Order: sequence, then C-alpha cells, then structure tokens
Amino acid sequence: MSINGKNLIGFEESKGSGELFQGINPTTNEFLPTDFCVASDRDIDQALEKAAFAFIAFKQMSSAKRATFLRAIADEMEDLGDTLVARASAETGLPAARIIGERGRTTGQLRMFANHIEEGSWVEATIDTAQPERAPIPKVDLRKLMVPLGPVVVFGASNFPLAYSVAGGDTAAALAAGCPVLVKAHPGHPGTSALVGQAIVKAAKITGMPDGVFSLLFDKGFKVGASLVGHPTSQAVGFTGSLTGGRALFDIAAQRENPIPVFAEMGSTNPVILLPEAMNKRAAAVAKEYAGSITLGTGQFCTNPGLLLATKGDGLNIFANALADEIALTNPSTMLHSGISEAYGANKAVMIDQQGVEVLGQSVEAVASGEAQPTVARVSGSYFIQNANLHKEVFGPFSMLVECDSPEELAEAAQSLEGQLTTTIIGEPADFEISQRLISTLQEKAGRIIFNGVPTGVEVCPSMQHGGPYPATTDSRFTAVGIHSIKRFIRPLSFQNAPQYILPESLKDENPLRILRLVDGELTKNAV
Amino acid sequence: MSINGKNLIGFEESKGSGELFQGINPTTNEFLPTDFCVASDRDIDQALEKAAFAFIAFKQMSSAKRATFLRAIADEMEDLGDTLVARASAETGLPAARIIGERGRTTGQLRMFANHIEEGSWVEATIDTAQPERAPIPKVDLRKLMVPLGPVVVFGASNFPLAYSVAGGDTAAALAAGCPVLVKAHPGHPGTSALVGQAIVKAAKITGMPDGVFSLLFDKGFKVGASLVGHPTSQAVGFTGSLTGGRALFDIAAQRENPIPVFAEMGSTNPVILLPEAMNKRAAAVAKEYAGSITLGTGQFCTNPGLLLATKGDGLNIFANALADEIALTNPSTMLHSGISEAYGANKAVMIDQQGVEVLGQSVEAVASGEAQPTVARVSGSYFIQNANLHKEVFGPFSMLVECDSPEELAEAAQSLEGQLTTTIIGEPADFEISQRLISTLQEKAGRIIFNGVPTGVEVCPSMQHGGPYPATTDSRFTAVGIHSIKRFIRPLSFQNAPQYILPESLKDENPLRILRLVDGELTKNAV
Repeated sequence: MSINGKNLIGFEESKGSGELFQGINPTTNEFLPTDFCVASDRDIDQALEKAAFAFIAFKQMSSAKRATFLRAIADEMEDLGDTLVARASAETGLPAARIIGERGRTTGQLRMFANHIEEGSWVEATIDTAQPERAPIPKVDLRKLMVPLGPVVVFGASNFPLAYSVAGGDTAAALAAGCPVLVKAHPGHPGTSALVGQAIVKAAKITGMPDGVFSLLFDKGFKVGASLVGHPTSQAVGFTGSLTGGRALFDIAAQRENPIPVFAEMGSTNPVILLPEAMNKRAAAVAKEYAGSITLGTGQFCTNPGLLLATKGDGLNIFANALADEIALTNPSTMLHSGISEAYGANKAVMIDQQGVEVLGQSVEAVASGEAQPTVARVSGSYFIQNANLHKEVFGPFSMLVECDSPEELAEAAQSLEGQLTTTIIGEPADFEISQRLISTLQEKAGRIIFNGVPTGVEVCPSMQHGGPYPATTDSRFTAVGIHSIKRFIRPLSFQNAPQYILPESLKDENPLRILRLVDGELTKNAV
Repeated sequence: MSINGKNLIGFEESKGSGELFQGINPTTNEFLPTDFCVASDRDIDQALEKAAFAFIAFKQMSSAKRATFLRAIADEMEDLGDTLVARASAETGLPAARIIGERGRTTGQLRMFANHIEEGSWVEATIDTAQPERAPIPKVDLRKLMVPLGPVVVFGASNFPLAYSVAGGDTAAALAAGCPVLVKAHPGHPGTSALVGQAIVKAAKITGMPDGVFSLLFDKGFKVGASLVGHPTSQAVGFTGSLTGGRALFDIAAQRENPIPVFAEMGSTNPVILLPEAMNKRAAAVAKEYAGSITLGTGQFCTNPGLLLATKGDGLNIFANALADEIALTNPSTMLHSGISEAYGANKAVMIDQQGVEVLGQSVEAVASGEAQPTVARVSGSYFIQNANLHKEVFGPFSMLVECDSPEELAEAAQSLEGQLTTTIIGEPADFEISQRLISTLQEKAGRIIFNGVPTGVEVCPSMQHGGPYPATTDSRFTAVGIHSIKRFIRPLSFQNAPQYILPESLKDENPLRILRLVDGELTKNAV
C-alpha cells in the first residue's frame, strides 16, 4: 500500500483546503515524501454527517460483526509490513524494534476488544421483571443495557504513533462500543497515520461496515481538531497529549451548547517516594533501575518518573550519586519531532533556573540536533513545596530529586502534589509499616500506585487504571487502557415494558447471546 | 426534634453571615416558624476543610460500617415522624400522603445503598496475577478497585423535598461510596432540610462517623452553591433542578483550575409518540391515562410528559377531544413555591403566544394564588419543527400536542428533539412493525424508552436509567436513580505489586469479604 496524503472522509478522499504539509524525519531534519492535505471545513462537516448516518447502522450491528471489523483492522495493519515500520520509524525517530513492539500492542488491543465485545457481557445487561400484582403500584418491566454515545473524535498522540493514534486504544474502544470514529492525525507522523487510516478503510469495506464509520483528517495546526470537538454532531473525545492541548479541547467541549465528555490523558510527573530503609539497603540498585526508567524511549512516556521524593540521609546520598553516575553514562537520543526537543530544552532550562535547583547529573555525550540530553536535578523539599513551577512536567528524559529534611516535610511535599497517572513507593516492610498516612495520600493523588517498581511499562489488562485526578486526566473515573476504556463511550439505556420482538438481543427473555446478566438482582446466564 | 435554623458545619453549628430567611407556606403564602442562617464564606471553607479531613478516615472505613451509618439515617428520619411530614407538607404544598410516600422512597434508597455496599462487590474488584516468567517482559501483579472521589456537593431539589434533597438519592450514593457530603439546602423547604440534616448528624455521631462527613448549608440565593462548586476542595457535584441552574453549576465546575464532574439532572419534555393504530383502537383510554400523568403532583415531576407527537387522523381527533375533556375536569393545585407557580404562568403564556399554538383544553375550576391551572395546547408539526421555543419545558401540568401531516413529518419532528430523560411510544404491534427507524431515533434521544405506558413513575431498581443526553443531564453516562448512581462518585485505582498487608480487603488473595471479583479474566468469589 502506498501513502495517500488525502483526507479520508468515510470511503471518499478529499484534497481539503488546498493547504499542504509534509512529514519530517527528526533524525535528519529532512522532509519525507508525500504531501498531506489539510482538511477543509467542508471535510469536517461531511465526515461528521457521514458518521451520524453510519451510526444508525453501526450501533445496531451485532457485537460479533463489529468484532470482525476490529480483527480485520489488525490484519490489515500487519499486512502493511515493513512499509509501516519504516515510515513510523522515519517520522518519529523511534527505533524499528520499538515500532514493531508497539504494532504488536496495537493489534493486540484491537483483538482484545474484538474478544471483549464478542463475548457480549460488556453491555452490562440488567433486567428487573414486572410485578403486576405489586401494591400499591404495580412494578413495570425494566431492562437496561449499554449503548454507544455516537461519533467520537480521536486525536493521534505523538508519542504512540500506533498504539494511541489512528487505530490505537481510543479508536479500538470507540469502534468496539459502536461509535463511528473521526481521527485527527498527529502532524508528527502523517505518513504513518495515512497508512493505518487506509488499512482501516480497507478493513471496513471488506467487513461490510457503513461508509462514514471511520474518517481521517489532517492538519498541521490546531484548527481542524478544534472544529471537530466544537461541532454539534460529535459526541465524545479521546485525547492523549499535553496539558495545554487537552485542556483547550476540554474547554471547547464544555462551552458547547450541548457539552460532550472529553477524556484527555495529559501530563503527569509520576512522583516516586524513596523510603529510608530501602535507600539504606539498595540505593544503588534502585538508582540503576530509575536511570533506565527515566531515559526509556527518550523519556517520552506519559508514565515517565519526573519526580523523586525522599528524606535526606546516607542512603539517599548513595542513591543521588549513583543516579548521577548512571545518567552520565546514558546516551542522548532523538526526540519525536523538533517541537518536542525544543520544548524539552526550554522547559528543562526553566526548571534548572528555579531558585534552589541544581543539576545533579547529565549525559556526558555530545548532543546532536533533535536529541535530548538526559538530566537529573535536585532541590530541597522546602523549595519544592513553595514553588508550583517545580511541580510541572518536563516531557523527556528529565527527573528531579526532592530532598526533604524530615518525614513530616516529605508528607507535606506528597500532599502538595497535583493529580497524577501514577505514584510509586520504594520501601522495605519496615518503611511501609510507618508510612500508612503517606500511602493513603499517594492513593488519593493517582490512578495507579506502584510498590517497588517503576511507573513506565503499562500492562494492557483489565486491572490497569491508566487515568487519574486532574491534571493527569480530565476525568479520573475512566481509563485510557484496557477493556474498561470502552466505558468512556457508552451510556445506559432502559427499556420499559418493551415487547420481546423490539428488545435488543442482549435483553430478550431467552438470553440468545448467552451473556452474563443481572436478573432481579442475581448475576446469571439463565433465561428469564 | 425541633428545627435548628443554623448551618451544620460537620458536628458544629454556625449562624453564618448574619443574613436570615424563612420558609413560606405556598398554600397560605404565610411565613413558617424559624429563621434560617445564610452560610458565610468561612462556613464554606470550614465545611470543606472538615470534609477533606473526614475523607481520610471515611474512605478507609469498611463498607459494612458505612452501611450502619446509612441505615441509622433512615431510622432517624423515621423517628422524626409527623414533625417531618407536617413541615415538608407545609413548605411544599404537597399533600401529607405524598410526603409519607416520598419518605418511604428516601429511607428505602438509604437502606438499598446500605445493602449494596455491605454485599461488597460494588468496588468492581479486578485482579491480574503476576507472570514473572513471561517473556520478553514479566507481567506484574495488578489489582484494581473503585474508590471514592472525595467531598461531594449535593443540591436539594425543590420537587423532591426528601428523596432528592438532604438525605436523598445523591447523598445516599455519595456517602455509600465513601465521599463526605455537603448539602446546599433548597430555600423552598429549609425546615424540612434542617430536620433531615439534624437527623444525619445524629446518625453520624451514633455510628461513629468522623466530624465533617456531612455538612448542611443554607442560602436564599445562589452564592453559597456557586462557592461550594467552585471551591478547590470539592470533588464532584450532584444536582436536580432547572436547565439554567444545572448549566450554571456545570460551567463553574468546568472553568475551575481543576475541573470536577457535575451530574446535573435538568429539564426534560419527555416526548410521547402516539401511533395511528393505537389511536384508532384506544384513543380515549390513552387520553385519560395521560391527563393523569400530565397533572400528577401538579406536573412537577422531571418525567412529566410535556410533548405528545402524532400524525393527524380520526383516531387522533378522538384523543385530542378526550384529552381536552379530561384536562377540563382536573383541579388546579398548589405548586411548590411562588417562584415556580409564577414561572409556570409566564412560561405557559409564552408558549401559547407562539405562532400556530392554540389552547386545546384547560381546567375549568377557579385558580387560587400559588396554584397551577392544568393546560394542554396544540400545534402543527411544521411549526414545531421550525420553532426551537416550542421544544422548551414548561415545568408544571402543561403538555403540547404536536399534530403532524405525515409519518415523514413525525419522523422529522422526532429527529429534531433535544436530549431527554425519557421518550415514550404508544402503539399496537402493527404500528411498531413499521416504526423501526422512529424507535431507533427515540432511543438516541433518551435514557429510558417506554412502550405503552407513562413516563411518570420512576421505579428505583438496578435497571432504571434516570439520565439522558444533554440537556436532560450534563452526562448521559450516569444515572441519578438506583444502585448504579454510586458510579458518579467513584473512580478506579490500581495497585501494582502491592504487598498483601497493604492491599484493601477487597483485593487480598484470600478474598476475606467473599465478594465477586474478576480474577485473571474470570468472575469468581474464590481466593487467588
């Protein structure tokens, strides 16, 4: 398959507004082949009109049929083979091995959702049978299931060109739910987006999906995304990216005449608490593990540990020195695009300029254009608590060690943290025993709490919560990873006294889909 | 128990800002005893500070212990006996029998949530065990459960002085979840609010709840409510009331530095589609049933049927005449307060003044001050489709019959509807057979679809969805009624590699609470 630079408006193509842009190789700073067409206002209207029309058929389609579509997308992505790997690697500076791994995660997510909806219990069918004899008021027959919200706008993420972009987690969850999807491609990897978008359209045609079930729109700026979110026809938004970007979309959606939910997964510093006994016992080993976590993927993971908090002591000194040494040995590496590497340099400089902050260690290798120099800094607990700027994320291979004078100051520093995707605690049993209040605080601050590990590495499984209190996300009640992420795009619908022949399969008396249902308060697969 | 007009700031009382107001009997227009103290800014700060502190203990309390609190509230409410009934009736104009029924619903809800959390499976425990041998990356141990969001602000509703006010559905759901609650009392029934608030404080003390788990704040205007929602410490909002009020709170919450979720259940016209065969067969019976539903509780239910849509024909003429006759025979009755009865008169007048609208029938009895005159109006489908004003709710015993020229126009009218709590379809099997597209549209517009019944009467059971697309609510993904309403106030939290002795009971290997859990993809009550 060759790259098509046009917008995909359902099964049609559009040259858009006439404005064009190109992909750039961040390693060489060279333009990559193919011109991409910025979508026009008309493209946006048509894509949403098509999506609204496709929704009528798509929402009533059986989960089993939608599952074939998801699996076909995975198959088509694999069929793109080296073309996709080479292009994604060229556009992002990420090594081919990482892209191949991420492709596996992406196709795995698509097939996971296919299995999840095919099993069928995801609709949370609930039935309360009628009691016509009940006094004083007869009880009606009520049955409830989850239904899709409508057309969903998904934003490609720069740091996951496959797993959180065109056919990524948000798209898979929304399509699984029965929502048509409109993807705004990330301008950092337009060729990758085009290839995957074309694969989705091919899969949709092969499996008989309605025209409009998927659209792909290009933009080099923010206008197309803002228009999609502000359009009265779109019904929900999935976004992974910066706090600035996520908040801007949240504000647009909240200010609509009919506000819609936005699930934006935004920045996080993923604070790590280092407790004294652990430092006394294994400071060097923890330092080595964290140097790896801080620099993994050039620090471009949303779970990158950007804050390390501890109380002063000999163990911590060993840790600090070992971390500095480890970071010195790491190599600079290319960031996703020039905008990100420039922002890394600028944000890091601002951080290091803050009062009380010193550089603890940094990579000693020469840094080429587009590369990030891994850096760790250090500040005292009292400065940290006072200065909100020190709580901000520096996206990239950067982390700040916060050294507190006492356990009380550490507790205060923890209490001062904003909402996070993750918090981590490194400790021995003796540490944990006297840190119950601290552990309670860390639970309040995040969606996932990790004991003696690193926050990077997000297992895709039902128990994974990838989300957290603001500003980590715009709604801590949902996850962006795992089967439960489908809940962002569905709502309950009750049927009262509906005839059997009108009820959806999931709610019919005989339970033809053999799904688990809550019937008169009891979970069962039995017929009513 | 006598009525205390002070604000309840946790277990303390406050005279607030010095401003006072009184309850009014809407039937006599006379002031009722007791002065109520408008809360001060300091009260708001202190109530939230106390709530945040109480949250630390309350969230870690066992569900069983919280259940005793909920049951004690129900007991204390019942102990208020006739004092509560008489005061609520005097403040709202609602008959004592209705108040007694509503008290039963309220205590029923409290005990329903007690049972629900005591059973324990509500935390949706999910466990994925470690696979240390997995290649290339070992799988970590991940366990997830639902945890409370934090302090929740609840607004008392004028039309449910008990079931959706101080100890109503929102409060019960939030307390069950482990969230401290701050209630802004509705100024329409301050004495009722005070009595129930005092009962909650008493129950909290008896069952050993932390000071700050509950606060009650009075205001005669909007300032206190706005401050509570805008305060950085509050974490979620439950509201039942007007679109104007709900949207104002939603906007405040969305514009916070840290936005919080608002579940506002607002207006709804609850459209009813009358299909031809049903009209041919049983127009008069349906008219009688609907005259009852339109005027039930002086039309002050959020599920009041304010729109009736049909195609013209002989059957519909019979319906229209019968409805006019039935409405003529109904009696005017007192509305909740003078503000509501004045708004009813004004909004009804605006509606009747719209082009093409005619009065179809109205109660012929003389109307006293504070009473509402039941009225039905009529308009053509084409006027309805063109004029957005005709889609607005007139809160009270008013309904508009929309007569369409053809099934196509009826479909267009249905498509033009805003989001609703309910939609209803009255039809015979022959009607339904040819109305599949229409039935699909009605499902998209609402949270509950009713077949051959009336929308009034909201059964409290797991299958009830009371919520719907905007403007019916601010988030169609949640319900305000039934056990699942707890989901508004909880979020998932994952534990990664946590030692057994740190894990919450719900997630420990041996499953000490004997709850249903998803363990490695299988629903089970077995130990890990």
